[in-house]
Amino acid sequence: MNFNLNEAIEILDRTPKTLDYFLSGLSDQWLQCNEGEETWNVYEVIDHLIEGEKNNWIPRLEAILQEGDSKLFPPFDRYSHLNRNTVEPIKRRLLEFSSIRKLNTTKLTILVEPELHLERTGVHPAFGSVKLRELLSTWVVHDLTHISQIVRIMAERYRDDVGPWKEYLGILKK
Amino acid sequence: MNFNLNEAIEILDRTPKTLDYFLSGLSDQWLQCNEGEETWNVYEVIDHLIEGEKNNWIPRLEAILQEGDSKLFPPFDRYSHLNRNTVEPIKRRLLEFSSIRKLNTTKLTILVEPELHLERTGVHPAFGSVKLRELLSTWVVHDLTHISQIVRIMAERYRDDVGPWKEYLGILKK
Repeated sequence: MNFNLNEAIEILDRTPKTLDYFLSGLSDQWLQCNEGEETWNVYEVIDHLIEGEKNNWIPRLEAILQEGDSKLFPPFDRYSHLNRNTVEPIKRRLLEFSSIRKLNTTKLTILVEPELHLERTGVHPAFGSVKLRELLSTWVVHDLTHISQIVRIMAERYRDDVGPWKEYLGILKK
Repeated sequence: MNFNLNEAIEILDRTPKTLDYFLSGLSDQWLQCNEGEETWNVYEVIDHLIEGEKNNWIPRLEAILQEGDSKLFPPFDRYSHLNRNTVEPIKRRLLEFSSIRKLNTTKLTILVEPELHLERTGVHPAFGSVKLRELLSTWVVHDLTHISQIVRIMAERYRDDVGPWKEYLGILKK
């Protein structure tokens, strides 16, 4: 196992500003494109990240610390952000993500004592018993998976444009 | 086809600072880990990006504009950076990438007139005739593929730590 709380926070702290730097000011063609029907565009990925900050990571962390195995995790709908009916610019969404993430990593450092809490468990609706360490590792890898998704969506836009180089570009292999 | 020079430059301009923001100051555990034998760590990916700025994109662009179909592209070894025997910190490598990229996008805007040049061709050693538009699209997607590789390498470090959530994390599917 490699999980380490301080190293995890290094990533959690960097994700919002990294995305802010990468995405702010981009042409809407990059932000509106997707990978085909029923797939997300960049706006939708950011909204999903915001939704997770509100209703997933911290509520589950608190459930583990407060309820343990006595109660299922509070529900989290991975698709609820798709009902968000807004035309907010990307910059505003990224700021929202940054500020709620900052609050949440602060809560994380206040609530969790690694020596005491990492092996504590809660009850996931699909997986059953899960550890706090697993939840926190997943929070980090969830950031990484969505950064990866964002660049993959954007690469897809040039799938035909790259011509024969497609063969060398791992991101287009699917 | 979706290629547009200004939109391509939006990505090329953002990649180095995005990586700088994401990677500077990270623990060496994140920067030194890899995906197993014969795979790259983050340092090696950055060195590969620097190598491309020196010996791939601009030399090939110039070959298309100056030689056209009369000569093969100058050689580029995709693995030459692995011989780079340095212990330079990540910050210095990222600064080198930023500054050479800045020079190269400036050259790009000076040398290429989209209305005149995008369909010009050169001779790739493996693919044969390739268009300038394809080279420039590939430059962009090459950035995206290596950003994707970097986050995938880092996610791999927590493959076991996430426990049952592995099932939901696309980045760990391989």
